[in-house]
Amino acid sequence: MPDPISLRIAGSGIQLPALQRDNAWFDRRFGQPEGWTARHCGIVSRPLAGPGQTSASLAAGAINQALASAGWATDGFDALISACGVGQQALPCSAALIHRQLGLSDSGIAAFDVNASCLSFPVALDMAACALATGRYRRVVIVSSEIASAGLNWDDADTAPLFGDGAAAVAIEAGDGRSQLLAAHLQTWSDGADYCQVRAGGTAVRLQDGVEAYRQAAMFEMDGAAVYRLAAQKLPGFVAELSQRAGIVPAQLKALVPHQASAKALKHIQRVLRLPPGLLVNIIQTYGNQMSASIPTALHLAIADGRIARGDLIALVGTGAGLSAGGVVLRY
Amino acid sequence: MPDPISLRIAGSGIQLPALQRDNAWFDRRFGQPEGWTARHCGIVSRPLAGPGQTSASLAAGAINQALASAGWATDGFDALISACGVGQQALPCSAALIHRQLGLSDSGIAAFDVNASCLSFPVALDMAACALATGRYRRVVIVSSEIASAGLNWDDADTAPLFGDGAAAVAIEAGDGRSQLLAAHLQTWSDGADYCQVRAGGTAVRLQDGVEAYRQAAMFEMDGAAVYRLAAQKLPGFVAELSQRAGIVPAQLKALVPHQASAKALKHIQRVLRLPPGLLVNIIQTYGNQMSASIPTALHLAIADGRIARGDLIALVGTGAGLSAGGVVLRY
Repeated sequence: MPDPISLRIAGSGIQLPALQRDNAWFDRRFGQPEGWTARHCGIVSRPLAGPGQTSASLAAGAINQALASAGWATDGFDALISACGVGQQALPCSAALIHRQLGLSDSGIAAFDVNASCLSFPVALDMAACALATGRYRRVVIVSSEIASAGLNWDDADTAPLFGDGAAAVAIEAGDGRSQLLAAHLQTWSDGADYCQVRAGGTAVRLQDGVEAYRQAAMFEMDGAAVYRLAAQKLPGFVAELSQRAGIVPAQLKALVPHQASAKALKHIQRVLRLPPGLLVNIIQTYGNQMSASIPTALHLAIADGRIARGDLIALVGTGAGLSAGGVVLRY
Repeated sequence: MPDPISLRIAGSGIQLPALQRDNAWFDRRFGQPEGWTARHCGIVSRPLAGPGQTSASLAAGAINQALASAGWATDGFDALISACGVGQQALPCSAALIHRQLGLSDSGIAAFDVNASCLSFPVALDMAACALATGRYRRVVIVSSEIASAGLNWDDADTAPLFGDGAAAVAIEAGDGRSQLLAAHLQTWSDGADYCQVRAGGTAVRLQDGVEAYRQAAMFEMDGAAVYRLAAQKLPGFVAELSQRAGIVPAQLKALVPHQASAKALKHIQRVLRLPPGLLVNIIQTYGNQMSASIPTALHLAIADGRIARGDLIALVGTGAGLSAGGVVLRY
């Protein structure tokens, strides 16, 4: 087993977009009685980007809060890692656009993306930890920012009410060794590569193949039942392996910060891992599934409200499009 | 300065797509006399994806060659990193699609993307090296695969003849310490974030904003003069810093493998770095600019034809959309 890596989350921040969309809007759209959407998805309201808000502008807001809470200067870091599932545009990488939005244009600070769909944040955190361990970077900012609403089919009652927009960031450094990344693990089962997808946006589906076909391909598609089956089958073994790598048992955790895939998925995690009440950080009722931004948003909220304190053992865990399971165990 | 990292490129491979596009096609399209395109861009022909060829299928071809040359089993590695500039689709990450194409669906092998536009390969190589150093992974496959032709404006004589499609992969492990990554460096100046871009493909530009506007935004746009100016201004200092981090001077290099940005950019590198003849690996005449696949394709060809041998000091260096300069120094 690899040794733990010194890693201190020096600061964190989130940026909620300007708007909220409540269930009444969906009830009306779906022609359903009041309360139908709430029962169907278990979510009360979800944040929604307003006019002019971009993935980069939300990211910059979250980063500025993270830098302020860390006490770092606006250019006081070596590398900016964008850990988003879907970017603002196809080229350049999202980190360059966020870098510009932060006013770092002439700084030379390194900017690149790590993308593992909804698991981008824990995967980027692990890669950044490895880069801190070798001395490649000393201070890194990681941000996950998503505008899920850009790709939703508003007539699909199974997916449209499920997602929220938003961004979350952390500022990390090696620290004094008391805060650590104890273990990381990522597994991909690409049987599930088309269970959650947006087929357009890359080189495969092209506008000249037909506008209607493109319009369909540009919308998020999910086979929720297939995702649930595969995730339910693989998650217990994944968590067991992650725990073993960290040399812990889940009962030692002060908090388990999951990807907010769905209300049903969170209940499943709670049950199958036999977690004590209160261990699971569940924010889905008012944030929805914010794709890659879910894990760092839940992490930030749990730090901000004191549920996670220095020295606490925590885990960030989830499943994401790919289909992958991923996570890290940290001593905060 | 960080210590060198043990890193052995155990195998490499490329996949050329099915078609080639020669200059006569462009001369006719632009209504120019024979030889005009050759003089304009300095490229003779460029590889072009055929019907049914996808970013994932090219990637899989390159990976299979890399695995064969390394003598590794088709599932004999821990992590698959896609290091592409533009993916096949918006979601999931490209690595999951390549994972499925390789027949690894049920393997659980970790799959994620690292994206630094045209510099994705050296950045992914450095991140993978850090992950080998900490023991996170033992054997990693990195692939860069691009279908640039999907986003070209065929009426733009400054960009359309410049690009080629293709994929290249490497299989890496820690090895016995004789092969090393001596240094890595990445700098981003996001003044240049819109000098090379595809504005569509993400959450910013949407089909409902207008089909014609979307069509424009889905095509690659480049301000070649601005890229050249910024790159020319920053590259010498970047290379000096990279060399200093590696504790070498460029004259010690056996080969400098550059991003094949353009014939003009390669001449500029040759001149400004005062490289001895033959040091620069220049494949642009028959490959064009293959975006992120350029550096690993040039690397593979130089290894395959014996220009790079075990123990040689080499550098991979380039500028890419962002605008960034990036590179690594390796003892092969």
